[in-house]
Amino acid sequence: MKPTVAIIGVGLIGGSLGMALRRSGKYRVVGIGRDAKRLRKAKQLGAVDEFTTRLSDVISADVVVIGSPVDTVAPMFERIVPFLKPGAIVTDVGSVKGPIMDAVKRVERPASIHFVGGHPLAGSHKTGVEAASSRLFAGSTVVLVSAASKPLRALKTLWNAAGANVQVMTAEQHDRAVALISHLPHAIAHALVHAFASRADRRRIAPLLAGSFRDGTRVASSDPEQWAQILRANAAAIREALKFFRFELDRIDDQLTRPHLAKHLRRSHAVRRPLFHGK
Amino acid sequence: MKPTVAIIGVGLIGGSLGMALRRSGKYRVVGIGRDAKRLRKAKQLGAVDEFTTRLSDVISADVVVIGSPVDTVAPMFERIVPFLKPGAIVTDVGSVKGPIMDAVKRVERPASIHFVGGHPLAGSHKTGVEAASSRLFAGSTVVLVSAASKPLRALKTLWNAAGANVQVMTAEQHDRAVALISHLPHAIAHALVHAFASRADRRRIAPLLAGSFRDGTRVASSDPEQWAQILRANAAAIREALKFFRFELDRIDDQLTRPHLAKHLRRSHAVRRPLFHGK
Repeated sequence: MKPTVAIIGVGLIGGSLGMALRRSGKYRVVGIGRDAKRLRKAKQLGAVDEFTTRLSDVISADVVVIGSPVDTVAPMFERIVPFLKPGAIVTDVGSVKGPIMDAVKRVERPASIHFVGGHPLAGSHKTGVEAASSRLFAGSTVVLVSAASKPLRALKTLWNAAGANVQVMTAEQHDRAVALISHLPHAIAHALVHAFASRADRRRIAPLLAGSFRDGTRVASSDPEQWAQILRANAAAIREALKFFRFELDRIDDQLTRPHLAKHLRRSHAVRRPLFHGK
Repeated sequence: MKPTVAIIGVGLIGGSLGMALRRSGKYRVVGIGRDAKRLRKAKQLGAVDEFTTRLSDVISADVVVIGSPVDTVAPMFERIVPFLKPGAIVTDVGSVKGPIMDAVKRVERPASIHFVGGHPLAGSHKTGVEAASSRLFAGSTVVLVSAASKPLRALKTLWNAAGANVQVMTAEQHDRAVALISHLPHAIAHALVHAFASRADRRRIAPLLAGSFRDGTRVASSDPEQWAQILRANAAAIREALKFFRFELDRIDDQLTRPHLAKHLRRSHAVRRPLFHGK
């Protein structure tokens, strides 16, 4: 019999995971949420096999994926613990791991219930199951937080079935890494939009906005409430990343009137090339 | 008879302009360059009607577009002046206007030869005529530097034929605007790549790189030599833009541990929305 995966919160990430797992043919997917209409939509789009608005229905699940925002993961875990069957594995998709792992640790539960933190490094500035795709995780990386080997293996198998590669690290390593490579770009995007908004001539120059500003600010169109939660939860690591970034910004500022600017840009050009293969 | 447009330097921008003008059916396009092989390629791709490696062939042109990098515009103008026919209009596509206009002013020429600075706000991190497209300028904005009304009208007609809208402003207004909305995003992209490169664990975290870092650093893959020229030429205005940006970065840093972060992000989210219509 196929293992049952319950996904609580069938939005962009949860919905895409459901689609990918169903497509793999290896899992039965149950969507859980508050809004029956949205869950029906998720089913129509092929994100779930079944859906329910009763949280207690997690009782049938071998794996539970909490797909809701960062601040709600530990409270949701606490709510479902009483209904979970022995051996159940719970994971999440939150962009910050330290605070979630700390909060989860404080939740009382039977020793047979496992929580393994997870973070798929894929997404979009779009939200909702309407933007979901079974290909969202194809070739992407999912971080799982170091844990006991059995639940870790089960989740690795699950994410592999969804097309993702898995990397295991500590919550702290994860949070330091994403502070630089994900949270900092979000902070920068918002700062860049605010810098534009503060210009008195912004209406006059708006027609001049082109690719570099569009790409550099794209993630400022991500959900503000979710991102405020993420940035606040990882504030200390983001401040460290900001220090690195400010140092590099000052270096380019300094180079603007020096002869080595081209050399400096050639170096970043060369570093970026293999990372995204020309994209 | 169709007006003849000579394009000196048939790369991404010059090539795309040639394609768009030929497609309009309103212009005869002559490509001029040093490399006959590359010009033959440009002709094969439909970017020019004819090509020549002799600069003196600008004699047939009603409009000359200098498509070469920022630092080479005024020297090129000086070289072609002796061959231009009376009434010829010369323009360029450089990303900085003040230094080009200053240098061009110092070039001796008959009063019947016009130079009008131009900057199409379209492009790509790709280069070369192979990346050119007749649709590159469709719906985009081209800045023309304030000038006498007759040559300005002729260039407005030309860029409209290529699908672009034209906005006229002073060189200084242009340079201040692009410092913030184009040059700053380039500087940021390079600084972000350098910040990543300075991390000791960069190899380990590279698989975690996802959309926000990719988009936020995309323009670091632009041509480093060309961009060093542009950034150096506009250093003063970029430093001013950097001040605005640092102020906004510090504001977000400050908000990370305050309750109003979501409100702050909602504002930039709302400002960006109408600018790019969800892209």
